[in-house]
Amino acid sequence: METEPKKIIIDTDPGIDDAMAIFMALRSPEVEVIGLTTIYGNVYTTLATRNALHLLEVAGRTDIPVAEGSHVTITKGAKLRIADFVHGADGLGNQNFPPPEGKPIEESAADFLVQQAKINPGKVTVVALGPLTNIALAIQLDPDFSKNIGQIVILGGAFAVNGNVNPAAEANIFGDPDAADIVFTSGADVLAVGINVTHQVVLTAADREKLASSNGKFAQYLTKILEVYFSYHEEAYNTKGVYLHDPTALLAAVNPLLLTYVEGVVRVQTSGITRGLTLLYNKQKRFGEVNEWSDKPTVKVAVTVDAPAVVKLVMDRLMDS
Amino acid sequence: METEPKKIIIDTDPGIDDAMAIFMALRSPEVEVIGLTTIYGNVYTTLATRNALHLLEVAGRTDIPVAEGSHVTITKGAKLRIADFVHGADGLGNQNFPPPEGKPIEESAADFLVQQAKINPGKVTVVALGPLTNIALAIQLDPDFSKNIGQIVILGGAFAVNGNVNPAAEANIFGDPDAADIVFTSGADVLAVGINVTHQVVLTAADREKLASSNGKFAQYLTKILEVYFSYHEEAYNTKGVYLHDPTALLAAVNPLLLTYVEGVVRVQTSGITRGLTLLYNKQKRFGEVNEWSDKPTVKVAVTVDAPAVVKLVMDRLMDS
Repeated sequence: METEPKKIIIDTDPGIDDAMAIFMALRSPEVEVIGLTTIYGNVYTTLATRNALHLLEVAGRTDIPVAEGSHVTITKGAKLRIADFVHGADGLGNQNFPPPEGKPIEESAADFLVQQAKINPGKVTVVALGPLTNIALAIQLDPDFSKNIGQIVILGGAFAVNGNVNPAAEANIFGDPDAADIVFTSGADVLAVGINVTHQVVLTAADREKLASSNGKFAQYLTKILEVYFSYHEEAYNTKGVYLHDPTALLAAVNPLLLTYVEGVVRVQTSGITRGLTLLYNKQKRFGEVNEWSDKPTVKVAVTVDAPAVVKLVMDRLMDS
Repeated sequence: METEPKKIIIDTDPGIDDAMAIFMALRSPEVEVIGLTTIYGNVYTTLATRNALHLLEVAGRTDIPVAEGSHVTITKGAKLRIADFVHGADGLGNQNFPPPEGKPIEESAADFLVQQAKINPGKVTVVALGPLTNIALAIQLDPDFSKNIGQIVILGGAFAVNGNVNPAAEANIFGDPDAADIVFTSGADVLAVGINVTHQVVLTAADREKLASSNGKFAQYLTKILEVYFSYHEEAYNTKGVYLHDPTALLAAVNPLLLTYVEGVVRVQTSGITRGLTLLYNKQKRFGEVNEWSDKPTVKVAVTVDAPAVVKLVMDRLMDS
């Protein structure tokens, strides 16, 4: 008897590494992509939707629905931080791709998430690659969502390391800290893959050349868009490689054994100079006083990753033609 | 030619491990204790002053002046958190010691700090074992204090680990986060020894028995007061040892080679659920945007400690008769 592939919804703000993760998912027999939901982050939501449709057209998978997500943070007032300096003005390496032919479905991202979790209780994994607004809206929309959803794999957080927006905060959590705190404390089965882990997973310039020399459709496409991403990393980190944030989170959903985890309560600071900071309570000390971590549900936080195995999987699946 | 002993002022809220650190300092030929300044923390300031005078009388060192410090946080409004459940209601293990005969000097702690730094520019080390209110007041009182003071060694912070007041904050920084942020960004030569380091330095039950069997005056005194401290650790950390927070910070001032350090900018979160959190920016990423760590002076933060050497020094010097 074969195992049924795991149903996944990718919540995404494409984004160069989002494109890699989406292509990886489509090449992974262990999972079935049942939809993409879109969010601001690397680009504004309108462009995220356009890019999601475009990527599915490149892949010949226009059968997969795209649901457009929130255009604003959950508290609505916050100014959005868009990382166009990382991914290019178009989010896909400034390649002037033609507009997609398809359209998003009528349901909002949050509605789609709620509906799919209800249809397949316990069977749907959300891989959240951007700020967590859509997921938090789904939690607010349906009190049963946290129970119905199988797992929420989050690419986000900087656990006990500096952030990438500022010393305190990682970009996806910083994008909507209030939403992130709702998701982390929702009681859902949450697995967070932070930059403390994804910074260990580097695609080198040599890997990119190998991609370039492959005939694979995805490899060819990615080779082009990766240029902008490499330039950003050289400037910000003084390195000739790029971090595989989104592909690592995707693979955590595909094969959890590639990483190790600790369990604890995660809260997000939502104001002040460390706004967007993720803080894991590891439960080693018994505090005499009640605090903001007391009696909150635990989540899993990735601490180590088999980086060579992840890079190899990324290369193998993307070079496949 | 002999090296002149380093002049130190201990800013203290005695406190069981404060008593150990003060006795250690009096037994360390490398340093000359030129004064104690007092602060709330383990006890209220009035009791801290009383205990400081008492400890100097126990040691036969009433020649050393005690300057009373602030009774309130630097912003004045904040409710004090007093750790009497760690050190006993009297701060010294509930031993009903007689009141001291001596009195504090007329100058306030902040005035004394400013004055001593001015008299001996670059030569005075402050070892700060409690909340940083007095040091921040000295910085505000005299624009030259940060330059005049030799070094400020801080027992405080929880760098990339959980706190001991709650998952985010260490007790001394939590005691006055605004003051701590002033000190960390003052431009003075600051060295922070956080619980990420002091939790590696444990005095075991066997060590305490060795102390008990020693004829040393300090060993005898400490054996008694340590009982409350051991009980607290067993309850909070499920361990039969106690952390040597204050003695470790004192020894960092006496012999910096016992620890290793990183340099970076430290800011303190002063509000919200992670109030009192210390966040070190290690300068590995170049951020495109200006942030709250940009252009701030760097400090040293301890990252490793030769724990066996520290425990041995503590034992040897305290058992000396």
